[in-house]
Amino acid sequence: MSSFTQLQSEHRQRVDRALEHYLSALPFNQAPLVEAMRYGALLGGKRLRPFLVYATGEMLGLSAQNMDAPAAAIECIHAYSLIHDDLPAMDDDDLRRGQPTCHIKFGEAHAILAGDALQTLAFSILSDASMPDVQTTSRLAMISELACASGAAGMCAGQALDLEAEKRKTNLEELERIHRHKTGALIRSAIRLAALAAGERGKAMLPILDRYANAIGLAFQVQDDILDVVGATEKTGKRQGSDLQHEKSTYPALLGIEGAQAKALDLYREAMDALSELASQSYNTASLEALAGFVIERDN
Amino acid sequence: MSSFTQLQSEHRQRVDRALEHYLSALPFNQAPLVEAMRYGALLGGKRLRPFLVYATGEMLGLSAQNMDAPAAAIECIHAYSLIHDDLPAMDDDDLRRGQPTCHIKFGEAHAILAGDALQTLAFSILSDASMPDVQTTSRLAMISELACASGAAGMCAGQALDLEAEKRKTNLEELERIHRHKTGALIRSAIRLAALAAGERGKAMLPILDRYANAIGLAFQVQDDILDVVGATEKTGKRQGSDLQHEKSTYPALLGIEGAQAKALDLYREAMDALSELASQSYNTASLEALAGFVIERDN
Repeated sequence: MSSFTQLQSEHRQRVDRALEHYLSALPFNQAPLVEAMRYGALLGGKRLRPFLVYATGEMLGLSAQNMDAPAAAIECIHAYSLIHDDLPAMDDDDLRRGQPTCHIKFGEAHAILAGDALQTLAFSILSDASMPDVQTTSRLAMISELACASGAAGMCAGQALDLEAEKRKTNLEELERIHRHKTGALIRSAIRLAALAAGERGKAMLPILDRYANAIGLAFQVQDDILDVVGATEKTGKRQGSDLQHEKSTYPALLGIEGAQAKALDLYREAMDALSELASQSYNTASLEALAGFVIERDN
Repeated sequence: MSSFTQLQSEHRQRVDRALEHYLSALPFNQAPLVEAMRYGALLGGKRLRPFLVYATGEMLGLSAQNMDAPAAAIECIHAYSLIHDDLPAMDDDDLRRGQPTCHIKFGEAHAILAGDALQTLAFSILSDASMPDVQTTSRLAMISELACASGAAGMCAGQALDLEAEKRKTNLEELERIHRHKTGALIRSAIRLAALAAGERGKAMLPILDRYANAIGLAFQVQDDILDVVGATEKTGKRQGSDLQHEKSTYPALLGIEGAQAKALDLYREAMDALSELASQSYNTASLEALAGFVIERDN
């Protein structure tokens, strides 16, 4: 097991424990609604966003104990967006990570509600859960950040842009705008949440961290598009060519496979360049470097 | 125009201005997503929750300027819940307040996203918007309160309980549990948001305010059920007898019309009793009294 894979596994276990803890604390925690929330939040996944929260927090000297709340909160937002994205009225997917999607398993009504309640849980966690070394003003800044990144200025805007783009051919600029909102905003937010938790020192680093985050966020999507063409269903947990089937504009469609791979590599270099600025300030950027490599090398 | 109707109209105009202000501040504010959010948030309604926020705030000496954010935030939550509740997979309603529901007007995908983004906007508003006399710790308590009231411990739990109750006959105790969560939690939260904004003094009054809120919250639902039987569609904006058609358990079904009316009156008296405790502490409870009367006397 590579050191990255081991680290990823540790962060995954840690955020899963935190999520289970917050879900179990709900009243009616055995009811279908909470079961559907648990299913959506705990059924595998790369845990990319929690990884970024823990790794950035650690780089800034914050213990994992302080990062459990933002890591779980951002994963709740991600999980809710996947549940709603898979609904028949949206992407109409019956398979996610190789398993039946939430509405297939629990019915559409419960899937809608589970998504809704997972979003709310994210804000409950950020406002209530223990973050021993985080000040109240920082906590408030984190809530504001997550709301901005996930709502009509961020992720939801990206999903809406994506819906509207389905009706016509998209150019590279539009495709980038969609992804910078749809997936990029939340990936960037994971890093910003950790930086904001660190107070003034973290805030000062936001411009460099944003550069890194914007680069890996887009690289992640480019690689996703590449995998949709060349990846195997048993690895990705999605039907191969499903983007093509949905006639979605993708990087391979616009740039060719080699062009898309070159784009991913450019973005990787941009991310590493941002990290080198942090390293020159004596920060340990090893985990964030490893993640940037994973983003463009992954096969699922 | 009665003084209550005039007050209601003032509060409605005020919260609508605030909502329009927050919606216009979004990027892509002319895009279909924001149009669908605006449609869901600004298309009429009694504005009961904003009324409670402004009235409670005023009683506690907080200017309306401080209450715009919580009034708009709670209305965003209410609006999102209606949009999602009306979806084909949920109640499948095509008419709301006499107008096409959001998914009829904008399509299901945009309606799902608009609901999602309105929920997020509520937390953006509470974390960012101006509340000049409200302290940071109080703001955080308000976010926690709204999340608790609207998620899997509150409103969403109530909607899930309601879904599950559709499959079988419900008794009075279960019906009350559904409504205390589904509508009661958010009505109570409106009052609590204003109390929490007032800091320690407001917090001390939460037990009495909760008594009032629980009573009018349930009374509101009892009256809703009564109006479903005796109200006219042109007044309520809903098809008369739609509960019956959906075979929903209601107060008139369980208690008879006269029994339901007696229940509403009991709850009104309970609410007025709680207010008399506040009046004995020299608070001006006139607006909250008028609202309690409206709740059980309204014909739509």
